[in-house]
Amino acid sequence: MQKAAETRAKIIQQAAGLFNQQGYAGSSMSDIMRVTGLQKGGIYNHFNSKEELALAAFDFAIQLSSQQFLEAIRGKRHAIEKLQAMLQVYRQFVDNPPIPGGCPLLNTAVESDDAHPALRDRAQQAMTSWRRLIIRIIAKGIAKGEIHANADPEAAATILIATIEGALMMSKLYGNEVHLERAIEHLHHYLVRELRA
Amino acid sequence: MQKAAETRAKIIQQAAGLFNQQGYAGSSMSDIMRVTGLQKGGIYNHFNSKEELALAAFDFAIQLSSQQFLEAIRGKRHAIEKLQAMLQVYRQFVDNPPIPGGCPLLNTAVESDDAHPALRDRAQQAMTSWRRLIIRIIAKGIAKGEIHANADPEAAATILIATIEGALMMSKLYGNEVHLERAIEHLHHYLVRELRA
Repeated sequence: MQKAAETRAKIIQQAAGLFNQQGYAGSSMSDIMRVTGLQKGGIYNHFNSKEELALAAFDFAIQLSSQQFLEAIRGKRHAIEKLQAMLQVYRQFVDNPPIPGGCPLLNTAVESDDAHPALRDRAQQAMTSWRRLIIRIIAKGIAKGEIHANADPEAAATILIATIEGALMMSKLYGNEVHLERAIEHLHHYLVRELRA
Repeated sequence: MQKAAETRAKIIQQAAGLFNQQGYAGSSMSDIMRVTGLQKGGIYNHFNSKEELALAAFDFAIQLSSQQFLEAIRGKRHAIEKLQAMLQVYRQFVDNPPIPGGCPLLNTAVESDDAHPALRDRAQQAMTSWRRLIIRIIAKGIAKGEIHANADPEAAATILIATIEGALMMSKLYGNEVHLERAIEHLHHYLVRELRA
């Protein structure tokens, strides 16, 4: 029983890295067999389909990324400081990602939006959780007088996520962190000039 | 001869829409046969491989998107007005895209960065052309005194592209234009407050 759970967890972890680099459609069963070192039957013992494995791998990748963000904000008291710490985590997605291939939310959103309803639903849920975390930090910051009372938490969450994810896309495309650095600097000014009370 | 060129163009156009929605890896030869209405041999008469078709389809999609941007800035004289017009074009990528599936540069960058060197090179070239167009508009705006002399055209191009592409990713994920609208409003303030002389 424990051995089965361990094998299942190992398949998920290794498939998550594969999917995040090659995409779900771009990862064949042979690719999954190669990275896990298992035969097809060994994989189907744990998952009924590639799609079931894809959903589990996405959840795992998001959980691992979320941990990085939660660790980064732990111990930070001021809302602006928390948001700045979260932006810094994106640096890891280029040079030392929790899952190879960068940000699983960006990758899965772009791959699934027109093509995979089940994955798209999962990516929507992950994006909504991500937005809600930022919205809560901003709303709490407003309540504590750290952020302007007239700030729009929903709009600010969109700006933060859109800018950093778009810059990550550019940095990953060129293999050059400069785009991410520019976005972090821009958002730092945005936080300090437009949100901070 | 003319008939062959027409068939080739038709294959490229229909494959471009397919690839932009389902991804290159997510589009099988049967999918390509279905959207073009041709047999496999009819497609291989014009392209040696799916990859050759993928590169031609990407170039076509980028050319069609670029036309939208060039048309939008035609007749605009002020650099800030040109940049604002370009941002407005992104609205079409949600509700009436030149190619079904949204922005081919975003989609191809995310799919290819870790997986398809030939497509990644093409996406890099398209991103570089896109950045250079914006950089030229800003540099010219500085020369004409329309934009602050201390503005950094390279950094501004990154901010504009990253924010709008990231917001498009979010709007496409939810099927909701609100994220794109927020990004356009944010970038409007950025252009007016931080770039305009």
